[in-house]
Amino acid sequence: MPLMFEFELLATDAGTGARAGIFHTPHGPIPTPVFAPVGTQATVKALRPRDLHELGATLILSNTYHLYLRPGDDLVAEMGGLHPFMGWDGPILTDSGGFQVFSLSDTRAVDDDGVTFKSHLDGSRHRFTAERSIAIQENLGADIIMAFDECPPPTDRAYVAQSLRRTHAWAARSLAAQTRRDQALFGIVQGGVFRDLREESAAYLTALNFPGYAIGGLAVGETKAQMHQVLEWMNPVLPAAKPRYLMGVGAPEDLVNGVLRGVDIFDCVLPTRIARNGAALVPGGRINLRNAQYSRDPAPLLAECACYACAHFSRAYIRHLVQANEILAHILLTTHNVHFLLNLMGNLRQAILDGAAADFAATFLAHYPAPEQAAPEQATKESL
Amino acid sequence: MPLMFEFELLATDAGTGARAGIFHTPHGPIPTPVFAPVGTQATVKALRPRDLHELGATLILSNTYHLYLRPGDDLVAEMGGLHPFMGWDGPILTDSGGFQVFSLSDTRAVDDDGVTFKSHLDGSRHRFTAERSIAIQENLGADIIMAFDECPPPTDRAYVAQSLRRTHAWAARSLAAQTRRDQALFGIVQGGVFRDLREESAAYLTALNFPGYAIGGLAVGETKAQMHQVLEWMNPVLPAAKPRYLMGVGAPEDLVNGVLRGVDIFDCVLPTRIARNGAALVPGGRINLRNAQYSRDPAPLLAECACYACAHFSRAYIRHLVQANEILAHILLTTHNVHFLLNLMGNLRQAILDGAAADFAATFLAHYPAPEQAAPEQATKESL
Repeated sequence: MPLMFEFELLATDAGTGARAGIFHTPHGPIPTPVFAPVGTQATVKALRPRDLHELGATLILSNTYHLYLRPGDDLVAEMGGLHPFMGWDGPILTDSGGFQVFSLSDTRAVDDDGVTFKSHLDGSRHRFTAERSIAIQENLGADIIMAFDECPPPTDRAYVAQSLRRTHAWAARSLAAQTRRDQALFGIVQGGVFRDLREESAAYLTALNFPGYAIGGLAVGETKAQMHQVLEWMNPVLPAAKPRYLMGVGAPEDLVNGVLRGVDIFDCVLPTRIARNGAALVPGGRINLRNAQYSRDPAPLLAECACYACAHFSRAYIRHLVQANEILAHILLTTHNVHFLLNLMGNLRQAILDGAAADFAATFLAHYPAPEQAAPEQATKESL
Repeated sequence: MPLMFEFELLATDAGTGARAGIFHTPHGPIPTPVFAPVGTQATVKALRPRDLHELGATLILSNTYHLYLRPGDDLVAEMGGLHPFMGWDGPILTDSGGFQVFSLSDTRAVDDDGVTFKSHLDGSRHRFTAERSIAIQENLGADIIMAFDECPPPTDRAYVAQSLRRTHAWAARSLAAQTRRDQALFGIVQGGVFRDLREESAAYLTALNFPGYAIGGLAVGETKAQMHQVLEWMNPVLPAAKPRYLMGVGAPEDLVNGVLRGVDIFDCVLPTRIARNGAALVPGGRINLRNAQYSRDPAPLLAECACYACAHFSRAYIRHLVQANEILAHILLTTHNVHFLLNLMGNLRQAILDGAAADFAATFLAHYPAPEQAAPEQATKESL
């Protein structure tokens, strides 16, 4: 692995598993822990690249499945790759397409070699294998790319165990298929909610020496307590010197709980998706501007917030925009929600560097209900 | 009329009727000639106020009919008026609601006192009179407000003549109803395509001494040649010291032709509406990004354009966004189209100040077909 992907671990909190670092990529440094807004179709919905920079985004995710189908990874490659195509010069991460094939495509057939599926756009037939996924991701040209994997139902032990063999074989094939040296290929730990399978998966993938590791198969139906448990199992067995990425998680309390358990990278459609449903993140949850109680409310979405939406507009105005189905509603709510998460992560990172991670987390999490029963946010269908 | 509405006429072109000036308002100066982007529902679709400032917008229009129905002019007043409500600190113009009542509401009954109509939102019954329109516009608090008028079919002489009596009575009643002195109330000349009626209307309204005059009832079905003819009749009979406003016109060639005939102010939904249909303004017409020919086109929308969209993105990328129905498509195309018109007006104004209006217009209009048969753009249903 070239030096351009060095992971500088600046601090590990003594009392918790929280880490602060910098992951260096060809398109710049990513201060960690980091939340990556999702640009499914090569655009973070309702934001321009300059807005993302202004909000402090240092990493965005885009989806291989969607871009393969439209506009096509060959077209993106012809335009110089995702960075110039979408006008974003910072770091990008692409997923492998595996998760979307299983969650979005109309029908699919999995075998040990790959997955055959039908496009959700036009029903056309396609096939992904580990090699195909890597070739597509090399065409897209992100800084961080993902091994092809299967994301099984997390509590079905028999299926999870069988699927794990396949995921491991695909991980090795993904690594072997890689030809570009300017992309960091991360392995994905699976194993559902089962400690032995998770530890087996971590050990197998660690032996392959990936430059980073994702924890997959969470936020897909298990409880929050189960998610925390899996992260606690993973923290001591994943190599400390490599970044860890918890896929598809973005609820504020889940970010904090993930960081406390050693996670460095997160992504989720949550801030952009709930914006389009009229909701704004606030400490302890969210408010929905469709609610009539905000119709004459002169307050900003969140009093202490420094984002453009909160600095200039009232809840009454944003509610009017929501009711009138105006594009500006999406723009302002997305701006606020992305700011909320990036600001949270920035403050949490500073607290880790200051040795105050536990206090910061306790104060923040006091706004939220205990995680015993709640299921993590599932937010996989951004673009449908 | 208070001094805050002074109209400084800086130059009148010797060879044409083109004028350059500054119309001073309580929310700042409007350099004329000016194009006002339309924010029907208290937002110029897909743009934030800071984007409008950056694009050089100095006047925006909002619609009384829409805001009266939703969120309600009383609510806007409670929030301090349109300027703080929508976060735009520059000049605003509101129309009277008359045109929308006739073009958008489901059913209506006109009598000499006013118009009864049903809301296009929920079918509820409402009534506008001159007094009601002014009261609503005073609640909204724009810098420039409009007299209540009827906009008849322009070529039906009998109806236009009868309607003109009504419009004149409503103009006088609008003026009498005005209580705020920090809003400039413009009269609206009607009379269809008939010279004697237009001149009668201009004379009647001029005698009432409005601070500005709109030329109404155009861009509603007559030919471009007829529109030019009406403007040529109006140029010598409207007072030179007052601004003239051609309502609902915004095609690039119509703006230039209007300025050549003495018009100072224009508004139209054209740049924002065609953006949402996937179209970008270019000299001589427009290109539609839905067209497959742009799918691998690395060029910007317009090579010589300095807007954010053209500086950073290819036609191929914007076409992808259009095909994927992404909000960023609307944002980028709206940015480009509004820039195109504001840049055109800025260059035309400079040409007038330089004594080169005729040359500038001839060069620009050479890209466009002759106006003999074409009908002006009709773009009244922005929000439906």
